[in-house]
Amino acid sequence: MSIERIVEGLERREPAALARAISLVENQRDGFERLLSHVHPGLGRGAARRIGVTGPPGAGKSTLTERLIQRFRAQELTVGVVAVDPTSPFTGGALLGDRIRMESAGLDPNVFIRSMATRGAHGGLATTTAEVADLLEAFGFERILIETVGVGQTELDVARTAESTVLVLVPESGDGIQTLKAGVMEIADIYVINKSDRPGADKLRQEVEVMLGIRRGNAFRHVTPHHTPGAVEAGRGRSRAVPADGEWEPPVLATVASKGEGVDELVAALDRHFVHLQQSGKLAARRRERLAQRTRAVLERAVQQWITEDGRAEQLLAARLDDVADGRRSPYDVAAEILDQVKAGAPR
Amino acid sequence: MSIERIVEGLERREPAALARAISLVENQRDGFERLLSHVHPGLGRGAARRIGVTGPPGAGKSTLTERLIQRFRAQELTVGVVAVDPTSPFTGGALLGDRIRMESAGLDPNVFIRSMATRGAHGGLATTTAEVADLLEAFGFERILIETVGVGQTELDVARTAESTVLVLVPESGDGIQTLKAGVMEIADIYVINKSDRPGADKLRQEVEVMLGIRRGNAFRHVTPHHTPGAVEAGRGRSRAVPADGEWEPPVLATVASKGEGVDELVAALDRHFVHLQQSGKLAARRRERLAQRTRAVLERAVQQWITEDGRAEQLLAARLDDVADGRRSPYDVAAEILDQVKAGAPR
Repeated sequence: MSIERIVEGLERREPAALARAISLVENQRDGFERLLSHVHPGLGRGAARRIGVTGPPGAGKSTLTERLIQRFRAQELTVGVVAVDPTSPFTGGALLGDRIRMESAGLDPNVFIRSMATRGAHGGLATTTAEVADLLEAFGFERILIETVGVGQTELDVARTAESTVLVLVPESGDGIQTLKAGVMEIADIYVINKSDRPGADKLRQEVEVMLGIRRGNAFRHVTPHHTPGAVEAGRGRSRAVPADGEWEPPVLATVASKGEGVDELVAALDRHFVHLQQSGKLAARRRERLAQRTRAVLERAVQQWITEDGRAEQLLAARLDDVADGRRSPYDVAAEILDQVKAGAPR
Repeated sequence: MSIERIVEGLERREPAALARAISLVENQRDGFERLLSHVHPGLGRGAARRIGVTGPPGAGKSTLTERLIQRFRAQELTVGVVAVDPTSPFTGGALLGDRIRMESAGLDPNVFIRSMATRGAHGGLATTTAEVADLLEAFGFERILIETVGVGQTELDVARTAESTVLVLVPESGDGIQTLKAGVMEIADIYVINKSDRPGADKLRQEVEVMLGIRRGNAFRHVTPHHTPGAVEAGRGRSRAVPADGEWEPPVLATVASKGEGVDELVAALDRHFVHLQQSGKLAARRRERLAQRTRAVLERAVQQWITEDGRAEQLLAARLDDVADGRRSPYDVAAEILDQVKAGAPR
């Protein structure tokens, strides 16, 4: 299929075109950037919303994602899902089970689930994931879920390509709140304590709230419904009203995804967050920043490819490797030498 | 401290110089590459051996590392440890506890433990970790342990900077062997089933052995000491003799690190592996490959820095961002335009 044919197929919502497009982009085959360039003008205009779901392994994100899909479908929204597992050498037995459950949702033509191939993607994973999300948006999906496993730097980068980011925690991770570092606080728009029918859920929620209060530098505001010790009423998340002054206060919600409890609250919080983004002007501002980041990432990729294809780098490296192995030159000397060659300009 | 002074301090084994050097390299401050260049000629000559320890979270790697340190110190070897946790936003409560235990080993001046700062390191994490290991080698440590948490692509890259790599698994990960993909098989020289006093240990070990047999394409060879169901005799790892034909058959060992069981077998296997590397010529060959990889990584870093410092890339990006946001240009158009500018050569 030519690039032009694929673009046309995407606009017509032909599944074969989408599958072709995703494969092209994931594997970075010839024409993939031309395809994405063609698709670009139609993005950021319609009803599509990108939602990131992240959190440590075992938090039940796949189950929660499944529930979100069900709610969106009940609202007659079409849903695309990109599932990313950067810990690629491990498929993860439980994860695989979840994936099979989720794939079964794929019998519904209005739901599309893609598990990203992640081996070798390295730092380019966030970019490739965002590019696949572009294709889903071009195809017309109204809700695009980007689910990552774990909370490493890569996963956070991936989450940052979404408009709303949900961080899912569970009580029995045993780590408590000291496990969260500042970097995580910056990216989550909504916190979810999943498996909240288990011991420790209430404690964890309180710890998150305390930390959020400290982060904002505000006086500690504590409004907690009374709970029986050890129990958290699922679904009664502490949702806050949308502030008029443009500042979003991340709600901390409680869910039991396996039972579908608390999910309506999550959907409502996502809706409120999107309204907030629109009203505060952040939606457009964040999009500009994401586009700038995309351009930098694409440039980085293009530069690396340029040097690799040039061939002179590898030639010089091969010529110098004996010296490096014997200690006469260092890798830093040789890299500098190659860079000088590159700076001098392309060979005539 | 000047770079020259730091290099001198490293040779004299001054702890202050080592701390300075590591900080310089971790933060990539001015002169850090000059420092590493100075240090390079002295590497790969002495008694230093780099050992990677990796595996999924909860496998007990920190405890196992602690035991290895004890064994090495009993042999009067000096030990440096670089602990890498790429899932940086989570310190991990249990991990933190382990880290405190390990730091207490630091009261011994012949043991040095460094937890790598990993935020923002991205794809450069493996390189920076290897560079810190260079410094430890320059300082004179005879055993350098590189411990990573998890088995994502990044962690595997880090493990690859070691000469011998140990993969630590545990029975209750619940994932079984289907969790291991081909990529993991390629990097591990020694397999350890830790917490082997727990149910499922024997089954897991058998699964690993079957997989190893399949990977080698050999007929299935099964020599298992009789075990009572559910129990694995710690310490009776299935160690294999060093083959004379140059092919290393990874042993699958059983340990209970918390009790110190099976650790002597692990140390013996590491010694055998090192002898194998020397005798087979792989030690030198792998070192060459690591140096080639290092040079490529340093070049990649230098190229990115060059473009960033050039300034024209950001200028052009800023000038084009409105067009990109409005869809008139795509990030791919702009990146290509910037690259053309870069290729045309440095501004005069």
